Amino acid sequence: MEETTSKKGAKKAEAKAKKEAEKARKAAEREAAAASSSTGAAAEDLAKDNYGDIKTANQSSTVEYVPLRELGEKHIGQTIELRAWIQNSRMQGAKMAFVELREEGSWAIQGVVAASAEGTPVSRQMVKWIGGVKLESFVQVEATVQKPLEPVKSCKVSDYELHITKLYLVAPAPEMLNLGLATANRVVGSLAEQDETADPNVEAGLNISEGAPVASLATHLNNPAMHKRAAVSQAIADIRISVEDLFGEYLRERRFKKFHPPCLIGAASEGGSNVFKLPYFDSEAYLAQSPQFYKQFEIAGGRKRVYCVGPVFRAENSNTPRHMTEFIGLDLEMEIQKHYHEVLHMLEGVLLYIFRGLTVRCREEIDLVRSVYPSEEFLLPEPGKEIRLTFAEGQALLRSEGPPEYAEVKDDEDMSTPQEKALGALIKKKYNTDFYVLDKFPVDARPFYAMPDPENPKLTNAYDFFMRGQEILSGGQRLHLPAELEAHIRFKGLDPQQPGIKEYVDVFKSVGVPPHGGGGIGLDRVVAFYLNLPTVHLVSDYVRTPKRLSP
Amino acid sequence: MEETTSKKGAKKAEAKAKKEAEKARKAAEREAAAASSSTGAAAEDLAKDNYGDIKTANQSSTVEYVPLRELGEKHIGQTIELRAWIQNSRMQGAKMAFVELREEGSWAIQGVVAASAEGTPVSRQMVKWIGGVKLESFVQVEATVQKPLEPVKSCKVSDYELHITKLYLVAPAPEMLNLGLATANRVVGSLAEQDETADPNVEAGLNISEGAPVASLATHLNNPAMHKRAAVSQAIADIRISVEDLFGEYLRERRFKKFHPPCLIGAASEGGSNVFKLPYFDSEAYLAQSPQFYKQFEIAGGRKRVYCVGPVFRAENSNTPRHMTEFIGLDLEMEIQKHYHEVLHMLEGVLLYIFRGLTVRCREEIDLVRSVYPSEEFLLPEPGKEIRLTFAEGQALLRSEGPPEYAEVKDDEDMSTPQEKALGALIKKKYNTDFYVLDKFPVDARPFYAMPDPENPKLTNAYDFFMRGQEILSGGQRLHLPAELEAHIRFKGLDPQQPGIKEYVDVFKSVGVPPHGGGGIGLDRVVAFYLNLPTVHLVSDYVRTPKRLSP
Repeated sequence: MEETTSKKGAKKAEAKAKKEAEKARKAAEREAAAASSSTGAAAEDLAKDNYGDIKTANQSSTVEYVPLRELGEKHIGQTIELRAWIQNSRMQGAKMAFVELREEGSWAIQGVVAASAEGTPVSRQMVKWIGGVKLESFVQVEATVQKPLEPVKSCKVSDYELHITKLYLVAPAPEMLNLGLATANRVVGSLAEQDETADPNVEAGLNISEGAPVASLATHLNNPAMHKRAAVSQAIADIRISVEDLFGEYLRERRFKKFHPPCLIGAASEGGSNVFKLPYFDSEAYLAQSPQFYKQFEIAGGRKRVYCVGPVFRAENSNTPRHMTEFIGLDLEMEIQKHYHEVLHMLEGVLLYIFRGLTVRCREEIDLVRSVYPSEEFLLPEPGKEIRLTFAEGQALLRSEGPPEYAEVKDDEDMSTPQEKALGALIKKKYNTDFYVLDKFPVDARPFYAMPDPENPKLTNAYDFFMRGQEILSGGQRLHLPAELEAHIRFKGLDPQQPGIKEYVDVFKSVGVPPHGGGGIGLDRVVAFYLNLPTVHLVSDYVRTPKRLSP
Repeated sequence: MEETTSKKGAKKAEAKAKKEAEKARKAAEREAAAASSSTGAAAEDLAKDNYGDIKTANQSSTVEYVPLRELGEKHIGQTIELRAWIQNSRMQGAKMAFVELREEGSWAIQGVVAASAEGTPVSRQMVKWIGGVKLESFVQVEATVQKPLEPVKSCKVSDYELHITKLYLVAPAPEMLNLGLATANRVVGSLAEQDETADPNVEAGLNISEGAPVASLATHLNNPAMHKRAAVSQAIADIRISVEDLFGEYLRERRFKKFHPPCLIGAASEGGSNVFKLPYFDSEAYLAQSPQFYKQFEIAGGRKRVYCVGPVFRAENSNTPRHMTEFIGLDLEMEIQKHYHEVLHMLEGVLLYIFRGLTVRCREEIDLVRSVYPSEEFLLPEPGKEIRLTFAEGQALLRSEGPPEYAEVKDDEDMSTPQEKALGALIKKKYNTDFYVLDKFPVDARPFYAMPDPENPKLTNAYDFFMRGQEILSGGQRLHLPAELEAHIRFKGLDPQQPGIKEYVDVFKSVGVPPHGGGGIGLDRVVAFYLNLPTVHLVSDYVRTPKRLSP
């Protein structure tokens, strides 16, 4: 939608936005000048102690601080204190101003300040000064809670308003914002990182979508404070927190123990490509691509079930909406008693717990995100009717019912991303679910530590999980006997004696290690795929790509 | 204690241990030979299907799996299944063997296998074979639960024993362990990393303490599977998990939001020394020394209160028991409404919640650790009587009541580590607490972002927290107005325009940022100081020092 906007449209919008911003700036300057000349005439301003810089405020105020989320009928008529951002303001004549005060997330309330006939506690000068405070400044407010004449549609707190008696500026915002709140709360206009290099000013990213200005993703990310203040960003961040919480809850309940794998490792264990390397005192170190080996060391170390949540690193020069060079992995590993499907079912269980939990805990946040980034509800299989196909069954489905280009896909070749998406569409049509598992991947598509299928050495006891046709989890049973592990390392063309691999195999030689398996999920991808966002870069707290290391 | 042991003693012990190991190995070989010759005569062994490699086992066994922690009176007489490590075994004559089966942590039970007169289901060959299974092998057991004649002192499950009817080898341990379980469960014999270079064989680390062999820390860390299997290691790891859990619980309850700061950053923001640097595509990156800037960006981004748990990196060539190059930081940051002591009290609150929570949740683990590493109970102040001294009061106490070398310490100079410890001893004597706060640190001892004391520009609104005289937390109020921030950056001899710092200041220029403060704790140090362990390296899941990147 926003990506089809022509360049011409974008330029026009940019010019328009610049013009409007300039107009706003000049108006603000006039207001400010007027306000300061008024407050200059301090002798006449009986309200002069009720506004201005925070330093003029009485810091030992005993008025009760009431968070907006707790505001209720009992507060009507009471004087309360509040600290908030001014997210919007307008003057109505010279004697009255309306300000929208946002406290946190999308919690905002309308404030009214009106000069009383007697001139105190609110003066005309005070109204003017408040009307001139720059948007996104942080202020301290004393006000009386009242019922508005009619509900305030523009604010989340619509049943109350604040009649302001004091307002102090705690931290001023600049004359002009690089990214306004309304724009920050809209869909990103473009995913291209290049926008930011064309013009360091943010307006370069401005674009038109459905008539209102939108900014590029680069503009959003270059202005972290305003990007993060948007209600949609806070909702995405809150959903992300819940995914992590739900993951941990489910596993702790099942006696999983948390641990922290290291980021710095002594050897590029899984082949050497796509690994960041750094000088380390007299030697060198690498950044871990996954906690794989360390999860297995925990199992070897006598833990029955472990999980970890932490950063992993990929030095891959991939500039796509799915890739980041640093992201948070949610990983687990567990002992297998009878069958590796114990692990598959555990992973399925934790993901279903997350998906079902989100609809309860984050209903409001999900709806808020959908109001900006529309998406269909994420469809789950009915309990007990989880969809598990073998890789070969998936390929067969593609061959028989998929697009013609997949008429001859092979059972022993890995799937491409478009192939996965096509299969996702077929499965959704057939089974009415956005979540499913492909099991028994061919041995060629799996790493050296994957356990081969005991009945067919061309297959493995390994699986991928999918969300809306996109891979979200890779996992499987691992080789736990050192002789088999070494043989498989050689079979994969690697040397069991090479640095990193030797230390790994040595652990399996040092003790008896139980059969085990696990899997790993990318936290940002789960959220992005669940909400069907255009990029995982809208989910990460601080995006890291080949082109972005800041902020 | 163990460190005073002479080198001669160590050598003697080493020689003794080697001799014993050799003896054990030969005995084992004899047993194995005997066993295999017996099982070779398969025709005579009526129990031959009841033991051996797991491949010979009936994999569709329907016997109930009962975890040892759930074993109770109701199981007496029942046949159960168990998977466990053999942690000890001994033959009693040719017809009976005892094996200690450890399932998880310190959960172990005695197993008995006795050849019955009829020769089935247990044969003499089976008893011999089981007695010869290598220690720390992983086995699958079918057994009947019985009451032992008298409680089994050597096992945690002392009221029951297992009469083994089947035992299969799932994953064999090697002929000889590099680090035995008894040694892994003892105090480390030396903290020196050098031991490992002297001799790649583990016995090099063997030492004598109170008559039994102990191994160096290096030996422990080089044998992660056995080091981690020790009950004392699992207890320390469990306490560490609880510290992290308690930290998050307390903060979530108070509306703190979790986020993930990045590890990869574009500039060495806090000066440039002690920072790991790495090539990053066509540019370079650094590893974050702390989440400081990112916590503040979250506050600027409209979050009222945030916390994070994740790795931080220090490229410091410090080889002490307190230092690591990578460790897990527990950090928080919050908006201040009236006074920065809101933050100080929050940090005090979360630490007291952790300390009090540990004594409830981890009583057993703490006692287990103390049985290996004796320490005094960690003393807390009475509720409402928390000890908070100013830095100057601390120095005055040192001058007046401390050792003579501190008779002239100055109020505007930072404390050394020995000075801190001396003060800790004085405070413990005077106030009977191991936990206290020093507030109002001199400006010279604090980073550029510390808020100066509004009443005395030589001081800051910043504090350190201490455990047993050792600093555990640094925190304070931060500068939130860009002009003051830039002035302070210059005052500290830095350039507000330099890479990393410019992007930081720009965030404060881009919007109004509320007053805020926070603090950070090292997870491993909290645990090490609480338990008074000889080194944080016993706490970290995977130790990283200038000399250690493996395993």
